[in-house]
Amino acid sequence: MEYIDIISEKTAFLVSRKPFSLELGGELPETTVAYRTWGTLNRERSNVVLVCHALTGSADADTWWDGMFGEGKGFDETKDFIVCSNVLGSCYGSTGPLSLNPLTNRRYGPDFPPITIRDMVRLQRLLLDALGVEQVKLVVGASLGGMQVLEWGCMYPDKVRGLMPMGASGRHSAWCIAQSEAQRQAIMADRDWNGGWYEPGVQPAKGLAAARMMAMCSYRSFDNFQQRFGRETQDGGLFQAESYLRYQGEKLVGRFDANTYLTLTRAMDTHDVARGRGEYTRVLESLSMPVEVLSITSDLLYPKEEQEELAGHIPDSRIEYLHESYGHDAFLIEVDKVSKLVKAFRDKITVKDSSAA
Amino acid sequence: MEYIDIISEKTAFLVSRKPFSLELGGELPETTVAYRTWGTLNRERSNVVLVCHALTGSADADTWWDGMFGEGKGFDETKDFIVCSNVLGSCYGSTGPLSLNPLTNRRYGPDFPPITIRDMVRLQRLLLDALGVEQVKLVVGASLGGMQVLEWGCMYPDKVRGLMPMGASGRHSAWCIAQSEAQRQAIMADRDWNGGWYEPGVQPAKGLAAARMMAMCSYRSFDNFQQRFGRETQDGGLFQAESYLRYQGEKLVGRFDANTYLTLTRAMDTHDVARGRGEYTRVLESLSMPVEVLSITSDLLYPKEEQEELAGHIPDSRIEYLHESYGHDAFLIEVDKVSKLVKAFRDKITVKDSSAA
Repeated sequence: MEYIDIISEKTAFLVSRKPFSLELGGELPETTVAYRTWGTLNRERSNVVLVCHALTGSADADTWWDGMFGEGKGFDETKDFIVCSNVLGSCYGSTGPLSLNPLTNRRYGPDFPPITIRDMVRLQRLLLDALGVEQVKLVVGASLGGMQVLEWGCMYPDKVRGLMPMGASGRHSAWCIAQSEAQRQAIMADRDWNGGWYEPGVQPAKGLAAARMMAMCSYRSFDNFQQRFGRETQDGGLFQAESYLRYQGEKLVGRFDANTYLTLTRAMDTHDVARGRGEYTRVLESLSMPVEVLSITSDLLYPKEEQEELAGHIPDSRIEYLHESYGHDAFLIEVDKVSKLVKAFRDKITVKDSSAA
Repeated sequence: MEYIDIISEKTAFLVSRKPFSLELGGELPETTVAYRTWGTLNRERSNVVLVCHALTGSADADTWWDGMFGEGKGFDETKDFIVCSNVLGSCYGSTGPLSLNPLTNRRYGPDFPPITIRDMVRLQRLLLDALGVEQVKLVVGASLGGMQVLEWGCMYPDKVRGLMPMGASGRHSAWCIAQSEAQRQAIMADRDWNGGWYEPGVQPAKGLAAARMMAMCSYRSFDNFQQRFGRETQDGGLFQAESYLRYQGEKLVGRFDANTYLTLTRAMDTHDVARGRGEYTRVLESLSMPVEVLSITSDLLYPKEEQEELAGHIPDSRIEYLHESYGHDAFLIEVDKVSKLVKAFRDKITVKDSSAA
């Protein structure tokens, strides 16, 4: 797993030799979860904050969401025991397409089975069990992370005391599915794709880069691109907008695996909190814990109507907005605002908890 | 040119053996313009309506914009002499990457020189000269077509009496450039790309399909996808949104050339009515003919602010809106509304003309 050298040396690994059955059928003969923790679990085991990462994230939340960490911040290790694990299916240490399949002794590659958000959450649950955590104070995450947050509420309602999904919906829209599929097709068009059986180090680099370039457009906005790049060109005549995207594409190729990209985007497409649980709004109405929904008003992938639908149906919920024009990525850019919102919500959960004690 | 069999048998071709010099340098030793006409040029030669097509269009406006044609419609051949030509750089009969380079006796392919919207318009002008047309009553077009419309006003102000740009801007935004570049990179990632020297019939099909899939997302909208597809699946479990996009990708591969896609999207990226003409708003202020701007309020590529900027600076202008949620493609879908607007504007130009006579 050549991307392991990208992740922090502080990463821990939980290995389970028990088969892990998958929602869509089949099982993984064994699983590994790569994870990080910050702070200390208190005696009451009541101070756990679980951070869920987005599509190309890792357990290193202090890297990809660094402004969130610190005393008085959203993730405050002087108060909380913060946990972040690499999701099932990813390439940063948890079991995924780059892992060796113990049954064949070669990488899963394109044979890695289809997974869902619920599989990811169930593996997180195994990790928390192993860490001795019975209940989580707050589950927080954006995008794919926000999907996990909502599934935590649906799957383990008595294990969570607060949810904070950001820039996400309760079910993946046709629009998001379509964009993901266009990106997957770009990867599979690549000369080095080879049905997913490319050699490590010989990725379908250009296809993956093109997919990332598409995705980057959807993570930002018209205004964001216009303000940053306008019609400026570089030496050689390349538009800065082109140059920026190419750089983003190349950067991802150096740190992410193409089969993993397919596995995780397909998992996102399965996202639907109502699957097998009844009518969508009823499922939302059944959530009993406090929920604060964060909506990014310029988000092109998960428009605010989706978060308003969540907040409109979840009984003990409120909604907050980020009004900047960055688009979906605002949760990574407006970190100070997000941190303040997380802190305020987390503090309220604590109060509620102690008053109930 | 294997796409010629797709176009109408009624297509005519104007061949010029004179070198055609290009705005960005170099020249084409000869040019062909494929064109269609409808109706009859009147004695005063005052009833010419020029239709400009979008990225993958052809001279067959009665095919790709069929609801626009008919008595009492926007394009009324009982009244007007309607002309539509395939743009320079395209693959439907006009000179483009699929044409034979007379200097090498092989196809231009990736050696086709970079062109601009102004080159396209200048070639249209040569066609109109050859047809004996000295002045155009109305130039109308959407998207890439709308860019040509605006350039007609800038390049030949005394040759046009009315402009109707739709779903377009006066200069291509960073956002549009970025999306185009992601699409181009998907094409060039394809195993059959071969630096653009692919054999006819062995297109970089998967890359071109992925590019089209991306583009289709940008031509529509969240709501349009949601209403049409939701989370519905087909036999085999494919989401309908995926199936639809794949179909759209394959369909384009069967009717369009990859080098042409690159040539035309790059030409769109050069679009800037201010290039070499001074300050952008001043250029718009200098347009003296009546202009009706059509804005599609759900357009993700050319947001309404861009059309409002056009209408805000062009002195004799007004703006009309299509408020449906289809996105950019609304000009092809809401044809009845577009036709009525074109008819109303065209009739006003006629009145103005006769009152001035």
